[in-house]
Amino acid sequence: MTTPPPSLGDIAPEDFRRAAHAAVDWIADYLEHPERYPVRPPVTPGDISAQLAPSAPVTGESLDAIVQDFHDVIVPGITHWNHPTFFGYFSISGSYPGILGELLAAGLNVNNMLWLTSPAATELELRTVDWLRQLMGLGDGWFGEITDTASISTLYALAAARELASGDIRARGMTGLAPMRVYCSAHAHSSVDKAVITLGLGHDNLVKVPVDEAFRMRPDALRACIDADIAAGYRPIAVVATVGTTSTSSIDDVVSIVPIARAAGCWVHVDGAYGGPAAIVPELRWLLDGVDGADSLVVNPHKWLFTPVDCSVLYTKRPDVLKRAFSLVAEYLRTRDDDSVVNLMDYGVQLGRRFRSLKLWMVLRAFGADGIAERLRHHCELARDFAGMLHYEGAWEIAAPVPLSLVCFRFAPAGSDEATRDRWNMAILEHVNASGVALLSHTKLHDRVVLRLAIGNVRTQREHVERTWQALRDAAREVVRRG
Amino acid sequence: MTTPPPSLGDIAPEDFRRAAHAAVDWIADYLEHPERYPVRPPVTPGDISAQLAPSAPVTGESLDAIVQDFHDVIVPGITHWNHPTFFGYFSISGSYPGILGELLAAGLNVNNMLWLTSPAATELELRTVDWLRQLMGLGDGWFGEITDTASISTLYALAAARELASGDIRARGMTGLAPMRVYCSAHAHSSVDKAVITLGLGHDNLVKVPVDEAFRMRPDALRACIDADIAAGYRPIAVVATVGTTSTSSIDDVVSIVPIARAAGCWVHVDGAYGGPAAIVPELRWLLDGVDGADSLVVNPHKWLFTPVDCSVLYTKRPDVLKRAFSLVAEYLRTRDDDSVVNLMDYGVQLGRRFRSLKLWMVLRAFGADGIAERLRHHCELARDFAGMLHYEGAWEIAAPVPLSLVCFRFAPAGSDEATRDRWNMAILEHVNASGVALLSHTKLHDRVVLRLAIGNVRTQREHVERTWQALRDAAREVVRRG
Repeated sequence: MTTPPPSLGDIAPEDFRRAAHAAVDWIADYLEHPERYPVRPPVTPGDISAQLAPSAPVTGESLDAIVQDFHDVIVPGITHWNHPTFFGYFSISGSYPGILGELLAAGLNVNNMLWLTSPAATELELRTVDWLRQLMGLGDGWFGEITDTASISTLYALAAARELASGDIRARGMTGLAPMRVYCSAHAHSSVDKAVITLGLGHDNLVKVPVDEAFRMRPDALRACIDADIAAGYRPIAVVATVGTTSTSSIDDVVSIVPIARAAGCWVHVDGAYGGPAAIVPELRWLLDGVDGADSLVVNPHKWLFTPVDCSVLYTKRPDVLKRAFSLVAEYLRTRDDDSVVNLMDYGVQLGRRFRSLKLWMVLRAFGADGIAERLRHHCELARDFAGMLHYEGAWEIAAPVPLSLVCFRFAPAGSDEATRDRWNMAILEHVNASGVALLSHTKLHDRVVLRLAIGNVRTQREHVERTWQALRDAAREVVRRG
Repeated sequence: MTTPPPSLGDIAPEDFRRAAHAAVDWIADYLEHPERYPVRPPVTPGDISAQLAPSAPVTGESLDAIVQDFHDVIVPGITHWNHPTFFGYFSISGSYPGILGELLAAGLNVNNMLWLTSPAATELELRTVDWLRQLMGLGDGWFGEITDTASISTLYALAAARELASGDIRARGMTGLAPMRVYCSAHAHSSVDKAVITLGLGHDNLVKVPVDEAFRMRPDALRACIDADIAAGYRPIAVVATVGTTSTSSIDDVVSIVPIARAAGCWVHVDGAYGGPAAIVPELRWLLDGVDGADSLVVNPHKWLFTPVDCSVLYTKRPDVLKRAFSLVAEYLRTRDDDSVVNLMDYGVQLGRRFRSLKLWMVLRAFGADGIAERLRHHCELARDFAGMLHYEGAWEIAAPVPLSLVCFRFAPAGSDEATRDRWNMAILEHVNASGVALLSHTKLHDRVVLRLAIGNVRTQREHVERTWQALRDAAREVVRRG
């Protein structure tokens, strides 16, 4: 009565080989010539959907036909993060060894939840994050694990802080407790807000500490906020310092923040998602000064470390607390080795854990410490070059210090008022982005629109910055002309 | 003063091409012959670490050298989830089109956080999850998004339930509120426990509702639990029903559960992480009966739908509530299109969002509805075949109904006591797993050790089940002989 076993013949191994070899050649060609494409595709909402069938096919289709649609329908709707003039958000780039690692990981398809479910994946993960720790010049005593995103890493860190603050929360929840407070600078990333909301701490209990003129958290203001909260009956539980904020890449003074936080019994989490890898550059190692005194740190290799998304590393000096916050071993997950191994599922929510260390290991080895430092240094130099171009041209302002590879600036010709400048800068942004020549993003500083040029792509060279600078000036002329 | 721009020449495109082509051939060969490897590698904790350098190299290494180490050091420490006798946990399998999709996604390396940051990725994600909805026979009105894991999908669903229960929690947190309660069966997955802990609801406030003789949540018991809690001053906010529990693949009666939950004002979340895709098989469509009346549903294509990890789909009929729970648009993330597009970052914590729909789209197209149904049906038939083998042999018991492709069983020869049987079954498990012939896992039912054989690999055929059955009987003989 058994149905004949389905054959895999309808997706034949030789079809996979052909399609995958073609994909490798396409990717290699794409990465050698990303400039064939506009950075932002000239599509409007719904354009891609309109070309996609309303339902899945009843019978299987050939890989060739599917890949053809990838080229005809999907690629024309891609925003090219690989483009050397992609300067928006934080410019990221995958790289050859990272792509190779992803390919092999997809082939192996292991779930690294337990040591048993892939010993090599667990041991490589622990070793690779330790390599990265050493490269950033951090001391001993850090436990690291890979998560998907900094949003999750920061959520885990604050969950550990919450756990440490009360031995009862895990079992009894937060109802009935006095409000707990978390502190970060007004320039911290929105992931801190989302973590606080998710954990049930309440968004109102995230205190945004004022910043100094360089957009760094003011340690004296942190102390004042904490003192006022304690006096008002709140319980401070965590301080999040940022090394490389999203708006301006400002670097909080961790050395000063740690003792203030400690005195209040707070967990210290450092968000180095973007800035952390820069500590691999010897002359930028000061970035992480003081971090060895913190409780946790997040660094994202998928941002400024040439690793394809997603790959975030959460370090903590208190893995015991992280484990206490999350470990929960159902009978069906118990193994004979539980007492002698690290089962990485114990340190977070996610049970499904991809083999992400493979790509990071390949990236670190293929570039080497010097190769990474050389590239990050070059990005910082390009940013300073761009700041120099702005400085030389009278109508533009540099809106924030440039400690790393992000430049915040603003078209601000003499005689124009601030409201007009806001409008012009948004128009310049749209003009340049719509052209496909480059992609930038914006933020607001002191409530004024500021443009951001973030450099992080492994292929970005001075010519790309110069071309973008020309496009910005052309756009400004056009925008002023239109009035 | 500028350092000469680093060349990418030290990782030359031609080196990538060579290494990636070789990786494609290796993967194809590996998937054609996964049986060359033992399922579980013969390694002990630390064996892999001992072969890994203590630090990253200072100068970059060649891709060839790195790949050589992958083969020499990593592969020998891999537990082969691709092996057709991997029957542990839930047996999963990546497939050719899924690997191809991962490769291309790694090449493009887009972050699908905003429509603008990749229109095709956003529109393909929405379309592909809608295809899957239709394939499972669900009605209209479902919004779907892809997350990494069911652990996160369920966390999001319960965050939405919490948001709906109180308009204030997002801002003010949970302190000061009456305890809120969530209900699931005693057989629900540990991810529900982790979500409740993470959200600050408290583990004590997750009520494990008793199950019937087939390990399904008892609707009468659910009603009684809710009534008792309301009488005691608790606030019921959500019920989680499971379609395919982890221990036994039991299927909760969603049709009966929904009205009970509704009457108490509860959000209904359905965990179909494993079982959901089976609804693609026409004769199994009843699995999702009643689900159209629920508020959310999670289905994991990376489990029983041939998609490489990670890929989980969260559906909800209340995207407005999910968005209210999580949306938080920092200035640096605003775009001109915000009012006219779906920005998927608004529906969860994670800002980094890989282009996961690409692999799912390729899988659904390459297999087609009929191809998927044929394979899942075959897996269910193999499970019934195995149950038949057990049934025929007197010394073995089938420990739970077999509605899908998971068989729970136990070596229970006449005359042995239960404690001895527990010991023997754990010994049989270890014996078979250590042999490398097959990999199974275990659970406990009625506090007794039960072995699990889960079928879900696209390459598993009857011969693999037969070989494993032989290994189990050999192991049982050996274990009894040893006493």
